[in-house]
Amino acid sequence: MDCIIGVDIGGTDIKYGKFYGTVLIETRKTKTNKTDFGMHILSEVYTEIDDLTGTDNLIAIGMGVPGPVVDGFVLGAQNLGWKGLPVKELIRAHYPGIKVTVLNDANAATIGEMMFGGGQGYKDFVFITLGTGIGGGIIINKQLIEGTTGSGGEIGHLRVGFNNERLCTCGLYDCVEQYASATGVVKSANSYRLGRKTVLNEVEEVTSKIVFNAAESGDEVANEVVEEMVEKLATALSQVANTLNPEAFVIGGGVSKAGDFLLNKLSKRFKELAFFSVRDVKFELAKLGNEAGIYGNMYYVSKELNDEN
Amino acid sequence: MDCIIGVDIGGTDIKYGKFYGTVLIETRKTKTNKTDFGMHILSEVYTEIDDLTGTDNLIAIGMGVPGPVVDGFVLGAQNLGWKGLPVKELIRAHYPGIKVTVLNDANAATIGEMMFGGGQGYKDFVFITLGTGIGGGIIINKQLIEGTTGSGGEIGHLRVGFNNERLCTCGLYDCVEQYASATGVVKSANSYRLGRKTVLNEVEEVTSKIVFNAAESGDEVANEVVEEMVEKLATALSQVANTLNPEAFVIGGGVSKAGDFLLNKLSKRFKELAFFSVRDVKFELAKLGNEAGIYGNMYYVSKELNDEN
Repeated sequence: MDCIIGVDIGGTDIKYGKFYGTVLIETRKTKTNKTDFGMHILSEVYTEIDDLTGTDNLIAIGMGVPGPVVDGFVLGAQNLGWKGLPVKELIRAHYPGIKVTVLNDANAATIGEMMFGGGQGYKDFVFITLGTGIGGGIIINKQLIEGTTGSGGEIGHLRVGFNNERLCTCGLYDCVEQYASATGVVKSANSYRLGRKTVLNEVEEVTSKIVFNAAESGDEVANEVVEEMVEKLATALSQVANTLNPEAFVIGGGVSKAGDFLLNKLSKRFKELAFFSVRDVKFELAKLGNEAGIYGNMYYVSKELNDEN
Repeated sequence: MDCIIGVDIGGTDIKYGKFYGTVLIETRKTKTNKTDFGMHILSEVYTEIDDLTGTDNLIAIGMGVPGPVVDGFVLGAQNLGWKGLPVKELIRAHYPGIKVTVLNDANAATIGEMMFGGGQGYKDFVFITLGTGIGGGIIINKQLIEGTTGSGGEIGHLRVGFNNERLCTCGLYDCVEQYASATGVVKSANSYRLGRKTVLNEVEEVTSKIVFNAAESGDEVANEVVEEMVEKLATALSQVANTLNPEAFVIGGGVSKAGDFLLNKLSKRFKELAFFSVRDVKFELAKLGNEAGIYGNMYYVSKELNDEN
């Protein structure tokens, strides 16, 4: 039977999905081998793809990578050790005659959420993934905005403070991901809990999940941490809305597991901070979790297949 | 002969351009009659259009208005006194059988600059007009991003400070137009020059033109004003670039007459503030001045005519 394989390469894991049409048949996860500047990654991916395909007929591979991509060329992926790499060409050389697409990972997840998740029914929306960092993707008129150098939707590096408080891994100060990612929330919590009475001082290691649970149970310090997170994220989203005037924000990633508790606060503060004519934005939770990437990559390559026929 | 008329309705003037094909044959300017909530504006526009058309054959009208527009419906135009008004329908009822388009004024100017001005040759760019306020328009893949409620590209209301220093006309604080529009530059100048030795204290009324001329001649206070303007505008543009990753910024409006003196400072500071992978953006001056709107409206309606045939 014809099958399509969606691959989502991350800095820690590689996720695979095997599809018949758009139906997910099997998933798999392997560790990302980052030795030797990531030079073994693609060959290991080929082995898994072949094994997953088995006796089926592989017709397309859609791959997502953690870095900017222009026309299938990966400009760089720090987390993998890759400098510029013509990934699409390499895969096509290995699998002649098979359709291949390569996308940025956040963009792939955005497409997944558009077609099968929280973005369904919206023509214009912005996907924000709150994980270790903050990623994003933009859909306008049902089309992905990839950006001139493959970096459309770098929402995580919007600046939300001017006091040079927190240095970001990107070299700039006070990017929103320093406050509203899982890492950012923990950073705030570790500063706010010092010398105060809070359940955050009764756990071995603070996580963003613990912070949100504590806040929901009424812990004062945890609520201050959440308020700061909401303030900074709402500020960033108001900037995005002033620029793009989208219909919806779709929020995913680990931190989004805080669910409506987070979404209600966020949408309330957003409305106060955004320009009056762009305030009416829906807030949705992402629905596909870790599978958004494989779904998005599958859909993107399927669409290219269909457009061809 | 067949003619197309581009109309650009502003809060002070209405500008008209009569075109044979894309060639501008005649321009005209009238005062905007804002009495009675702007209810006379359209009928006065019809009179001018008829007069301009003369014995030619009017085939299309492209109109720009200072407010958000969705599918030819103007959601509101404060400067004209208009609440929601089905402008496209009204014009079509008055001119049956004639092609009509209605755009937001900044968006029309953006299209003008794309086709005939500073945006020529770019697929993805953002137009910023620095006038009394700050307007903007976004082109991605040669298409205008109008926004869900007609407010795409509201660059002027990006927030560039968190100390609630300057209240904006929109009700929020520290929007970039409070610092980088002509009005904003004058506001800064009037504060910075107090009690100091500067040519800005030797003129009857400070204008942004005087400030930029003084800065270029080495006046210290004027240079501080320009530095602040550049800092705030570069901050806003870095946010736009992190979101959209465009090829170019095209800068127009009265303040842009400061030319390369402004552009060089702006592009230098922008590169320091933007995320590393979106830094490589060209800065261009707009070329059409006050005629960008009539050109853009003409082009937009011509395109609809051609797409139909």
